[in-house]
Amino acid sequence: MDQEIAPWASPAARARIAEVAAGLTDLSPGGVLATVETALHEHARQFDDEGIVLYAGTNVLGPAARRVSEPLVSGRPSMGWPGEKYQAGLDHFDTLEVLAPTLVARVMGARFAEVRSHSATLANLAVYTALTEPGDTIAVLPERAGGHTSHHAVGAPGVRGLRVADLPYDADAYDVDLAALPGFLAHERPKVVVIGASMMLFPHRVDAIKEAVAAAGAVLVYDASHLAGLVAAGRFQRPLAEGADVLTFSTYKSFGGPPGGAIATDDPALAERISAAVFPGLTANYDAGRLAPLAVTAAEILADGGAYADRCMAGARTLAAALHDEGLTVAGADRGFTASHHVAVDVSGLGGGRAAMARLAEAGIYLSAIGLPRQRPGEPDRGLRIGTQEVTRRGLDTGDLRQVAAWMADVLLRGADPGAVRKAAAELRARRS
Amino acid sequence: MDQEIAPWASPAARARIAEVAAGLTDLSPGGVLATVETALHEHARQFDDEGIVLYAGTNVLGPAARRVSEPLVSGRPSMGWPGEKYQAGLDHFDTLEVLAPTLVARVMGARFAEVRSHSATLANLAVYTALTEPGDTIAVLPERAGGHTSHHAVGAPGVRGLRVADLPYDADAYDVDLAALPGFLAHERPKVVVIGASMMLFPHRVDAIKEAVAAAGAVLVYDASHLAGLVAAGRFQRPLAEGADVLTFSTYKSFGGPPGGAIATDDPALAERISAAVFPGLTANYDAGRLAPLAVTAAEILADGGAYADRCMAGARTLAAALHDEGLTVAGADRGFTASHHVAVDVSGLGGGRAAMARLAEAGIYLSAIGLPRQRPGEPDRGLRIGTQEVTRRGLDTGDLRQVAAWMADVLLRGADPGAVRKAAAELRARRS
Repeated sequence: MDQEIAPWASPAARARIAEVAAGLTDLSPGGVLATVETALHEHARQFDDEGIVLYAGTNVLGPAARRVSEPLVSGRPSMGWPGEKYQAGLDHFDTLEVLAPTLVARVMGARFAEVRSHSATLANLAVYTALTEPGDTIAVLPERAGGHTSHHAVGAPGVRGLRVADLPYDADAYDVDLAALPGFLAHERPKVVVIGASMMLFPHRVDAIKEAVAAAGAVLVYDASHLAGLVAAGRFQRPLAEGADVLTFSTYKSFGGPPGGAIATDDPALAERISAAVFPGLTANYDAGRLAPLAVTAAEILADGGAYADRCMAGARTLAAALHDEGLTVAGADRGFTASHHVAVDVSGLGGGRAAMARLAEAGIYLSAIGLPRQRPGEPDRGLRIGTQEVTRRGLDTGDLRQVAAWMADVLLRGADPGAVRKAAAELRARRS
Repeated sequence: MDQEIAPWASPAARARIAEVAAGLTDLSPGGVLATVETALHEHARQFDDEGIVLYAGTNVLGPAARRVSEPLVSGRPSMGWPGEKYQAGLDHFDTLEVLAPTLVARVMGARFAEVRSHSATLANLAVYTALTEPGDTIAVLPERAGGHTSHHAVGAPGVRGLRVADLPYDADAYDVDLAALPGFLAHERPKVVVIGASMMLFPHRVDAIKEAVAAAGAVLVYDASHLAGLVAAGRFQRPLAEGADVLTFSTYKSFGGPPGGAIATDDPALAERISAAVFPGLTANYDAGRLAPLAVTAAEILADGGAYADRCMAGARTLAAALHDEGLTVAGADRGFTASHHVAVDVSGLGGGRAAMARLAEAGIYLSAIGLPRQRPGEPDRGLRIGTQEVTRRGLDTGDLRQVAAWMADVLLRGADPGAVRKAAAELRARRS
C-alpha cells in the first residue's frame, strides 16, 4: 500500500511534501541513516551554528544541562510518586523527582511545582481539566494579542470541550481592558481566565485583573511560557505574588532548560487537582529524562541573581532601539519598546509578517510572524516577533545586536542581497559560541 | 516560601519523599550538578548495565538510532506541514517530517501515520478527541485484562469528558466475550471501542469484534502500544488488515524506537480528523528530535524480516516454559503460555504482584505487577508481567533466559538471597551488550 502524508493540506504544503518525498528513494537502513544524518548535519550548520536565531519560542541548553541530558532515561517509565511507583528499580529517579520540582517551585516563588507535563500546551490542558468541566467557558487573550493556540478552541480547550471567549483587550495598554472586564465576566461567566501571551512586551496588571476575576468567582491562570526565565529571575513580574492562582510555563524558551511544561501554584487544593490531571490524566510515561537538565537549569537560575535575564532584556532594548533607528516600525515606541526580552516590529507596510519572515530566513535570520494588537480579526499577521533568549546565551553583544538590526533593515527596507547577509551572519556566529 | 511535594500522597510516598529531600542540602549549581550526575550514573549502573530488565513498557535504542538522537532538535518547534510552517529556517526538518511518517505507515501496513504525539497516551487522547464529543461513551478492556490507564476514566477519557464502559471479557479466551458483545454494544452505544492491552498473551479475534462493532456503528481502535514491534514485523496479528479502523501505539517498547506515540489508519477522513486533534489540538512543539531515531528504527524493522520480533517471541516462550518448569504458575499454560513477547506469572499465592516485584528488584530483576483476567475487580494485582524486548536487544540467549527463570524461582520460591542473585545477574549482563 502506498503511504500518503496530509493530502488535505494546502497546495503549498502538498507541493513541498511531494518535492521532499521524490528525493527519498533509498529506504534501506543505510540509506535512511545517511539521509537522516545529512538532514541533522545540514540543519545544525544552517540553523544552530550559522543562524541568528531570534525566534522567541526556542533556546539552547547550557553546557551543564546538556551534559546531563540522557536519551535512555526518557524511555524508562516512572509512574507515581517515589515510594509508591508502579515500576521497580528506579530508586535513583526518586532523587530527580524530588529535586526538580523543588527547585522549579523555588525559582518561581511557589509552594508547589508540577513538572511532568510533556509541554506547556499540555500543562494548560491539565489546568483546564482540573478546573473545568466540558461545556464550561474559559476566557483568554485574543489571538492578535498573542494568545496562544493552547488557549483557543482549535487547541487544548477544544480537547476539553470548552467554550472559549476572548477577553476585552486594550491595544494601547497591551493588556486586558480593565474597564470592560467586570461586565465581560458577568456576562460570560468563565470558570477560568487565562492571561500571559506568546508575545509580552509589557507586564499585565495582574492585581487589578485578579480583583475582577476573583469577584466573578473564576480562577486566574497566567501562562508564562515565554516569560518564565524572567519571572524565575524576579524580573518583569511575579504573577503568583501579584495574584495569579496558577502559573503555567515552558521550561525551555527564556527559562533555558529542556523542552517541556510546568505548573506552579501556592494552593494545595489546586495543586492536588492539577497533579491528578497531569498523572494519570495526561501521562503514563512522563519523560524522566527532562528532570536532570531541568534541575540543573533551575539551580543555575537561582544562583545567577538575574544576570542572564537582565542580559536578555538589555539585548531586547538594544535591538528595538537599533531597529527603530534603522527606520523600521517597532511596536511600543511610546513606552520604550519593551519591558521584556521580546521585540515586535510592524511590517504591515512591507508585505506582512509571513513575507518578512521568509526574506529574513534567506538571510540566515530566523524569527516568526505574529499578530499585533491593532490588526483586525482574520487579517494576516502584521508583525515580526523577536526573542533575545538564544542570541544572549550565544554571547552576542550590544555591537552584534546593532549589526543584526542593520542587516534586518538592509534586507527588509534596502533591498540587500540575502545571500550576502547570510554569509556575514555566519561569520559573526563563528566568532560567538 | 518552603516547597512541598505531594502532601496528599500516601504515607509510604510521603516518607520516601521526605527521606530523599533530607539528603538534598546543597542547591548550588555545582551541588545540584553533582547530585544529578550521581543519580544518573548510579541508575545507569544498577538498571541499564547490571539489571535484567524484563519490564514490558521500556526498551533501549539501537546504536544507529541512538547516534541520531539530538536533544537540541527537541527544542526547535516546527508547527504545521512542510511548506506551510509557522517557523522559518527548518527546511531540513521537512525531510524528517516526510520520512518518519512514511516509514512508520509502511511498517504498519497503513496508508497514513501520525507520528507527532508525545506519547501513546496522548495518541489515544487524540483519537478520542477526533472521534467523540464530551459525554459520549467509549468501551474498553477492563483493568484486570490489561486495559491501560489511558483507556479508563482516571486517564485520557476523563480529560475528554467521556463515559467509560468495560467490555464484556472472556477470561478463558483472553479476549472480548464475543457472545456478549452485540448485546453490550446495543445497550451501551459506545462511539469508540478500544481493544489491545498492556498485557497481550494471545491475539484478539479482531475480525469478529469488528463485525459487531461496525454493526453497532462504532469505530474500532486497537491500542498496539506493547505489540507495535511485532505488528510492524508482520507477527502476532495485523490489526488494520483484520478490521481495526485505527491503530495507536508506542514507538519504544517492542517497536524499539524513541519514546512517543503514533497513530495509523487507512481512512483519509479519520486521518485528517486525528491529525487535527494532534496538532493544533494537543501539541504546539511536537518534539522533532524523535523523528530521526524513529525513521532509523522503522527502516531497520522493514529490513530485518521479522528477525528481532521472532527472537523476542522465542525468548518469551523459552522464559515461560522455564518458569513453569521451575515451579511457578505461568498463565496461558493450556495455550502454550504466550503468542507474543509477553509472559504472565500468577503470584497470588506468593504475596501478590507488588511484593514479588519488590523481591525481584532486590535481585536486580526488574518487571512490574499486573492484574490477571480472573482476579476480582479491586483485588490487588495477582500477576507479574514480563516483556522480552529489552533482554533480546541486549543479546541474552536461551541459556541466559533459563538462568533468569531459575533465579526468579530461587528468589520467589526457594528463599534465595537477593543480593547474591543480583551479583550473579550483573555478571551475566557484563557478558552481554
